[in-house]
Amino acid sequence: MIDEAFRARLAAAAVAVEAELDARLSFDPAPGERARPRRLLEAMRYSTLGGGKRLRAFLVIETARAIGRGDAGPVRAAAAIECLHAYSLIHDDLPAMDDDDLRRGRPTAHRAFDEATAILAGDALQTLAFEILADPLTDASTETRAALCAGLARAAGLAGMVGGQMVDVEAETSATPLSTEEIVRLQAMKTGALIRFSVEAGARLAGAGEPGFAALSTYGAAIGAAFQIADDLLDAEGDTATLGKRAGKDAGRHKATLIAALGLVGARRELAAFVAKAKAAVDAAGLGDRGDVLRATAEFVATRKN
Amino acid sequence: MIDEAFRARLAAAAVAVEAELDARLSFDPAPGERARPRRLLEAMRYSTLGGGKRLRAFLVIETARAIGRGDAGPVRAAAAIECLHAYSLIHDDLPAMDDDDLRRGRPTAHRAFDEATAILAGDALQTLAFEILADPLTDASTETRAALCAGLARAAGLAGMVGGQMVDVEAETSATPLSTEEIVRLQAMKTGALIRFSVEAGARLAGAGEPGFAALSTYGAAIGAAFQIADDLLDAEGDTATLGKRAGKDAGRHKATLIAALGLVGARRELAAFVAKAKAAVDAAGLGDRGDVLRATAEFVATRKN
Repeated sequence: MIDEAFRARLAAAAVAVEAELDARLSFDPAPGERARPRRLLEAMRYSTLGGGKRLRAFLVIETARAIGRGDAGPVRAAAAIECLHAYSLIHDDLPAMDDDDLRRGRPTAHRAFDEATAILAGDALQTLAFEILADPLTDASTETRAALCAGLARAAGLAGMVGGQMVDVEAETSATPLSTEEIVRLQAMKTGALIRFSVEAGARLAGAGEPGFAALSTYGAAIGAAFQIADDLLDAEGDTATLGKRAGKDAGRHKATLIAALGLVGARRELAAFVAKAKAAVDAAGLGDRGDVLRATAEFVATRKN
Repeated sequence: MIDEAFRARLAAAAVAVEAELDARLSFDPAPGERARPRRLLEAMRYSTLGGGKRLRAFLVIETARAIGRGDAGPVRAAAAIECLHAYSLIHDDLPAMDDDDLRRGRPTAHRAFDEATAILAGDALQTLAFEILADPLTDASTETRAALCAGLARAAGLAGMVGGQMVDVEAETSATPLSTEEIVRLQAMKTGALIRFSVEAGARLAGAGEPGFAALSTYGAAIGAAFQIADDLLDAEGDTATLGKRAGKDAGRHKATLIAALGLVGARRELAAFVAKAKAAVDAAGLGDRGDVLRATAEFVATRKN
């Protein structure tokens, strides 16, 4: 159930991760550095600070907390994943890709700065994500840090986010529309992999053992699928002012979505199925009442308005 | 001294790292993957296979070998660094950046494919670099893997390669030319950091202790500086056919180089000083005769013709 307490935790996670990003992207040189390239930092800050739902960050922090870890480590890992996510948005918005002018109600990075700066800011944010995960401050265990770097690389790479983005770009210009199965797979790569990794990162940081880790991984995959269907429904039914980005663009562009394949009713049915699957996975993880926030997150993902 | 034996080792390192890259960028799905996005892989293969001096790979492999490690681990780390290097070249060549059509005598990635594919191929190659370094096959020790990921992130990020690229982009449009000191710093970030990390990675993989590690790090920094000055001299004095990329482009673009600041004679003097510094660092590392290949590498970097 999404109540005030849930919204307060969502807000608290956003505040914590924003503070961490603000510190990581300081204009003051880190130890051993000379000056920092100001304009690049400005573009990185512009793209990571000041808003967004922070769903990925929330999943890292709340998964770790549900298992019993509530210190700054998961907040740091959450900041890393938000950096990776921000890089993907900057590059997706570029003229050669989706050519978008608006993101979260503001000009996209290449509009607010310029294309070269946007490309480099995205590049540097990807690097920073790995730098944070490999940092001893994030976790004292080298085993955990190495596993987090490996996990992020898998989620972000060929078999995950970038691979999915490439399939998506190619589908737009292809004569044959993707099948329902292909769309589910594409979305699992493009959006789902990083959301699933957010849950896995929280689980790993809190020392989840098997079979809890596997159940939480299933939870993350279901949340990722639900998130993407809800996003497609919002694009089809929402308006630009509420979304903070252009609405209706998927249909205009023949984007591969489940709505195109199944219709609105069919997509809503799929969404409900993934929410149920996510909740069942929390039960299977054996967290009892401590899993309530994760269950509520499944509801939240399916019913959000922007 | 650069003799036949040296050239044979250089060629052997190139063959080994090419085989590793070929395997990593296979069209066959890895375990747990479905299909791999073919066009993206083609662009990644186009940009990483088939040539280049492989200086960074050579430095990883030969530094490790000089200390006593000659197995496949350093070859894997070398492949990771070549992926990172290839990503930086793809993005630097983009229309919004240097807008180059030619690289190693062939069309640049965005020319051979398209801009969207080139951006994504670069992104995926950066990710792959971290994936390889975090892979247990590269090194059994989680401590070494976490340190390699952290080191690559530092070399590639804000305080290193991308930061230097941003300073370079900004200097091109700035009214005030950079000072000699600023140029040295820019180049240490843009090119030097990754070359230095190549040496450090080899040292770490071979278990170098202090003070050997620090001396080898100094060696890497000197090699990086020498490499960049030699590159600038080749650009000023070479021709396009030999270089495989457009010659004379630095002067035409008011690129910040030591030649612009010190003239040809001054730049050659700096080059000789860095070669001497690199050799002295090998002596300080206490490798004795086993450091001969690293000493020869300093000569090679300064006297190469393309």
